[in-house]
Amino acid sequence: MRFDNKSGKFLEDAIMQFSSLPGIGKKTALRFALHLLRRPETEVENFANSILSLKKDTKFCTVCNNISDNELCSLCSDKTRDFSKICIVEGIHDIMALESTSQYNGLYHVLGGVISPMEGISPSDLNLANLFTRLDQGNIQEVIFALPATMEGDTTNYFINRKIENKNIEITVLARGVAIGDELQYTDEITLGQSIINRKPFTK
Amino acid sequence: MRFDNKSGKFLEDAIMQFSSLPGIGKKTALRFALHLLRRPETEVENFANSILSLKKDTKFCTVCNNISDNELCSLCSDKTRDFSKICIVEGIHDIMALESTSQYNGLYHVLGGVISPMEGISPSDLNLANLFTRLDQGNIQEVIFALPATMEGDTTNYFINRKIENKNIEITVLARGVAIGDELQYTDEITLGQSIINRKPFTK
Repeated sequence: MRFDNKSGKFLEDAIMQFSSLPGIGKKTALRFALHLLRRPETEVENFANSILSLKKDTKFCTVCNNISDNELCSLCSDKTRDFSKICIVEGIHDIMALESTSQYNGLYHVLGGVISPMEGISPSDLNLANLFTRLDQGNIQEVIFALPATMEGDTTNYFINRKIENKNIEITVLARGVAIGDELQYTDEITLGQSIINRKPFTK
Repeated sequence: MRFDNKSGKFLEDAIMQFSSLPGIGKKTALRFALHLLRRPETEVENFANSILSLKKDTKFCTVCNNISDNELCSLCSDKTRDFSKICIVEGIHDIMALESTSQYNGLYHVLGGVISPMEGISPSDLNLANLFTRLDQGNIQEVIFALPATMEGDTTNYFINRKIENKNIEITVLARGVAIGDELQYTDEITLGQSIINRKPFTK
């Protein structure tokens, strides 16, 4: 379907804006716009205002760089968490994923990316200075690498490890192996190889 | 993935708003929100403002009910079009679909729905009074039914036909038949039946 400018520029503008969102084409953008047109004006105002305040009012935690409403995010200001552990992640979505497991009670540190010479991302582009400051302040007993299981993630792990290996901090990395529900024949050979090397005592 | 309120209420609000769009779940909504967070503030303001003006500034054509920036839409104010034909459609997206064929040069009339006793949509909920006024003003030689090929579309066609059949206006309906690219074995029997009844002289 072509989109000729026959239905006015306000609709056209909204379609253009929605189709700039990741994975959204013009047809879906039109569907969004027509959906909003049918909703009451106050609801559409709330929609637009929530987008404005998302950008204007959202802060980044001065300690861990997580998204936050205040100087300190809800995790860094939660006294019930284990302040001796820092889990290093690429982005905010990784915090959400790890928090949804309910298996970790330490703090986080959001790098905002991983080292990638291909994409021109060097260590200085990442939120690393803050990390080293946090580790220099002492009290940290364990650093957990939870970066993507990719070449770039591994490179970043090695880089950070080299900087902090003398600090008497335990450094761990997320276990790699066969995912729950995976069939062995479809598991890639590197993962399968690591999972046999790192096999564990069987527990009932 | 659960979405605990650990990344602030502004993000949460934006996720809630985006996930109210048709077909958008919480994960995609989060992706949209994080995407906007990475964009410059002016771009995000433009995004929000285009949504606001979509709702506030969009008018509906006083003649045909198409979306418009002015009193008259670009089609109804286009002197090159054939003012003797009115094509009746359910929604604005149908105008876009028909316009994209470049096969029709008349005007439109947007009903804003079809008669549906199941969903409680009666003739009085539709933009019908305006249609009858247009037809009473004369000059219209042909009305084309381009409503959905469903029970509700057919009901609406019958309803309008009964009201206007005495007005000496030619009433036509979109051809139904085998769609381009369709295989006969997968075409439903009603469509196939109609296409053999309405067969046309073969032209090379």
